[in-house]
Amino acid sequence: MVKKKKFPRESFVSMTELVLPNDTNTLNNLMGGRLMHWMDIVSAISAQKHSNCMVVTASVDNISFKHPIRLGNVVTLKANVTRAFNTSMEVRIYVEAEDIPSGKKIDSNNAYFTFVAVEHSGKRIEVPEIQPETPEDIALYEGALQRRQLRLILANRMHPHEATELKSIFDIK
Amino acid sequence: MVKKKKFPRESFVSMTELVLPNDTNTLNNLMGGRLMHWMDIVSAISAQKHSNCMVVTASVDNISFKHPIRLGNVVTLKANVTRAFNTSMEVRIYVEAEDIPSGKKIDSNNAYFTFVAVEHSGKRIEVPEIQPETPEDIALYEGALQRRQLRLILANRMHPHEATELKSIFDIK
Amino acid sequence: MVKKKKFPRESFVSMTELVLPNDTNTLNNLMGGRLMHWMDIVSAISAQKHSNCMVVTASVDNISFKHPIRLGNVVTLKANVTRAFNTSMEVRIYVEAEDIPSGKKIDSNNAYFTFVAVEHSGKRIEVPEIQPETPEDIALYEGALQRRQLRLILANRMHPHEATELKSIFDIK
Amino acid sequence: MVKKKKFPRESFVSMTELVLPNDTNTLNNLMGGRLMHWMDIVSAISAQKHSNCMVVTASVDNISFKHPIRLGNVVTLKANVTRAFNTSMEVRIYVEAEDIPSGKKIDSNNAYFTFVAVEHSGKRIEVPEIQPETPEDIALYEGALQRRQLRLILANRMHPHEATELKSIFDIK
Amino acid sequence: MVKKKKFPRESFVSMTELVLPNDTNTLNNLMGGRLMHWMDIVSAISAQKHSNCMVVTASVDNISFKHPIRLGNVVTLKANVTRAFNTSMEVRIYVEAEDIPSGKKIDSNNAYFTFVAVEHSGKRIEVPEIQPETPEDIALYEGALQRRQLRLILANRMHPHEATELKSIFDIK
Amino acid sequence: MVKKKKFPRESFVSMTELVLPNDTNTLNNLMGGRLMHWMDIVSAISAQKHSNCMVVTASVDNISFKHPIRLGNVVTLKANVTRAFNTSMEVRIYVEAEDIPSGKKIDSNNAYFTFVAVEHSGKRIEVPEIQPETPEDIALYEGALQRRQLRLILANRMHPHEATELKSIFDIK
Repeated sequence: MVKKKKFPRESFVSMTELVLPNDTNTLNNLMGGRLMHWMDIVSAISAQKHSNCMVVTASVDNISFKHPIRLGNVVTLKANVTRAFNTSMEVRIYVEAEDIPSGKKIDSNNAYFTFVAVEHSGKRIEVPEIQPETPEDIALYEGALQRRQLRLILANRMHPHEATELKSIFDIK
Repeated sequence: MVKKKKFPRESFVSMTELVLPNDTNTLNNLMGGRLMHWMDIVSAISAQKHSNCMVVTASVDNISFKHPIRLGNVVTLKANVTRAFNTSMEVRIYVEAEDIPSGKKIDSNNAYFTFVAVEHSGKRIEVPEIQPETPEDIALYEGALQRRQLRLILANRMHPHEATELKSIFDIK
Repeated sequence: MVKKKKFPRESFVSMTELVLPNDTNTLNNLMGGRLMHWMDIVSAISAQKHSNCMVVTASVDNISFKHPIRLGNVVTLKANVTRAFNTSMEVRIYVEAEDIPSGKKIDSNNAYFTFVAVEHSGKRIEVPEIQPETPEDIALYEGALQRRQLRLILANRMHPHEATELKSIFDIK
Repeated sequence: MVKKKKFPRESFVSMTELVLPNDTNTLNNLMGGRLMHWMDIVSAISAQKHSNCMVVTASVDNISFKHPIRLGNVVTLKANVTRAFNTSMEVRIYVEAEDIPSGKKIDSNNAYFTFVAVEHSGKRIEVPEIQPETPEDIALYEGALQRRQLRLILANRMHPHEATELKSIFDIK
Repeated sequence: MVKKKKFPRESFVSMTELVLPNDTNTLNNLMGGRLMHWMDIVSAISAQKHSNCMVVTASVDNISFKHPIRLGNVVTLKANVTRAFNTSMEVRIYVEAEDIPSGKKIDSNNAYFTFVAVEHSGKRIEVPEIQPETPEDIALYEGALQRRQLRLILANRMHPHEATELKSIFDIK
Repeated sequence: MVKKKKFPRESFVSMTELVLPNDTNTLNNLMGGRLMHWMDIVSAISAQKHSNCMVVTASVDNISFKHPIRLGNVVTLKANVTRAFNTSMEVRIYVEAEDIPSGKKIDSNNAYFTFVAVEHSGKRIEVPEIQPETPEDIALYEGALQRRQLRLILANRMHPHEATELKSIFDIK
């Protein structure tokens, strides 16, 4: 039996949100927690599209917030699955904020969320593999191994010595 | 002039949330995004208490979600500042979920959020240093250097070769 | 002076929403009012993109709700400006609902919202004209005149006898 | 068997809402989408009262938004069924906004929503007829036929030539 | 100068709410806290109408919750000012819940909230007196003195010996 | 059989909330109704912890709101059961508000809520008794009888003559 593969673009989702007063702190900037909430929804939908299953969030990689996003800005979140590992999927989210009257756009964030496909009972289900198409797809597909090793080390589920892919970040012979 | 120091317990905050229907996915489990939203609020309040300033979220470290939290569960989030670096603060959040009728408790997550203290104009402000008291405080204070180097590398703001503290994780000579 | 024109695709916005418990009635179907709320947000963002101004909703055309949308469905709303009239813009919204586990999609609705571009004071501002590109763009651009006459008649701002474009619907000589 | 009739006043509902920050756009005006959400709730309750059934929104007639409603204003929505057609009901909503400190009131909108009475299975159920009492009731009852024909034409479910009642709007012999 | 008086009916407000999933506990009953939130909004609007001022909640009298209100029920809250005391007003709220499909109504609660009229600066403002009209108005107007004494005693602002009106409840000579 | 007793500290709950724009009135003060909603949640969780059962709100004692709480303030609510009566529990809530940048704290409120422990069917369940430990626990435990009599009188379920405990407030022989 040949296992089905899907392209990253088949799980592409774009979500648009308007920053309302309750989303902001006392500086009138979007709160990081609200943005992460949106990231979780868009990436869960993407993982659902790839797997045609219900999914649960398994982990979130390091996110850094560089630029403030303001009240009234329009936030666009784009997500797709970059790689699947048996029952789990890595989703990359790209966030852009725009002040429409001035036309000014901000590259806000890149983030990686991992999801697991599950049945109603909670049992994990195998998902299709990813077949990367474009050079960007391929780069994300290949980087996924390193990011996965870092996740496993940080969750104490892999010993750093086993992280052969990750070692290349540290240029270690 | 001797710079003021504060104890981790001075920034301690405990927040309790009840999991309501809109917080859950179709499996009746708390969505990861809602939990991160609560984590951001509790840790921002903790960073405010330490700095007596307004604060903005600078980064979130890798979070993994091990156990599902159910509709009707009570979620307790506890946070305090573990270490300060000039204008930034690392806050550790500990999350516990409880099904009260059965008395069953789950150690849900540990997470680290980083905040920057700012003025109304957005200009960064120096914050008090941390004076760790208990053995747990000291372990968290010392580990903060490693976590910071990993954050800087992942944000492309430090080259892995400079990450002297972090190398010990990988047992590298 | 040649007035600037913009293409419909320049105001294209795609928004994705997950149907949560509070969005549904006691039959577990998405409430029409919540869907209209989302339609208003996506189309307001589209009108902002076309005009690079703040906008206010001026009118909503007749909407019919044919198929129930269910709890847990993913709703995709796509909007773009079809035609501009001095200070007002007609935006068409296309709504699709998807039950992702089964892969079943529903063509839910088409709707037309009209917006007016305004300054902070509330004064109306002239907006760029639309230059339709594709055959669909042209059909929507041309139909906009009829829809506008119907709107003006229904708001008692035009006498039916003046509605020369609209009469063709009724095949009247 | 004589079918039961009900008076329009038996389905009268009055709902009051306070305009809070999250209901407003960056001009501090109530967003049209939020107002439509409230209109849908008040009119669904009215249709429930008439039919003593669960109801689903079938269509919304053209709505125009003439005057901005401000943050802090009190919005009163009044609704009642104007006419029933087998399993469907037309509900008229009258919206008024008030700035209480100044005592200034605005006649904001009239709108017509149509609902269908359904069983739990989704099957349509016959509803009582309307017995208009006052001159206003009678005018709304009689106008309901024209509005229904326009709805059916706009939903491509009636050919304009068959719309005998509607033709009178266009003064066509 | 003769001070202006207003009738209780001039501050009458009716508010209707539909019980949605997020308003309920795990038994699918409306939570008491959500109902009190609605009571506060309806009575604040009533006090605004009487005073034509901004108002702040000063106190809430003992409320008892006798009957559960269910998910999907329609809750009607009616409020009017019963008596004014210089800068404060007592508002009575009457709450009724209805299961519309079955037509079953529940007399849910009576409650009394007290508001103070204020300027933007927070300074208290004198409000019109109440002129009761109906026998019910008069009974509520007269009972207001007793309720006020109980409030002052419970807030430690009156000694029980001074509570001449209240003593009649306890039948004390 | 010896009935189980629990200490007040076993039902202690601390909840922290940040005052967001939608929680405030047009003076930028926290609305009383939102605060009562939070009080109900924190005290329901406390009563659940004492009884290990589902609970429903039975009554709320007189609450007075002395000091405005501002937008951006951090509100801390602390609750524990003070006394149990067969199937009902009195919970005391202590509310404190803090403006963190200035370090200014406000003792906002004390309140008493009463809950009843119930099964899924709604049937009332017996709960453990309270064993007060500290002098404050004992004072609250003893005062609970008086507060209970006042509640029963105000709900017309006790005649004032029977309220032997309460009479001491009024110094009546």
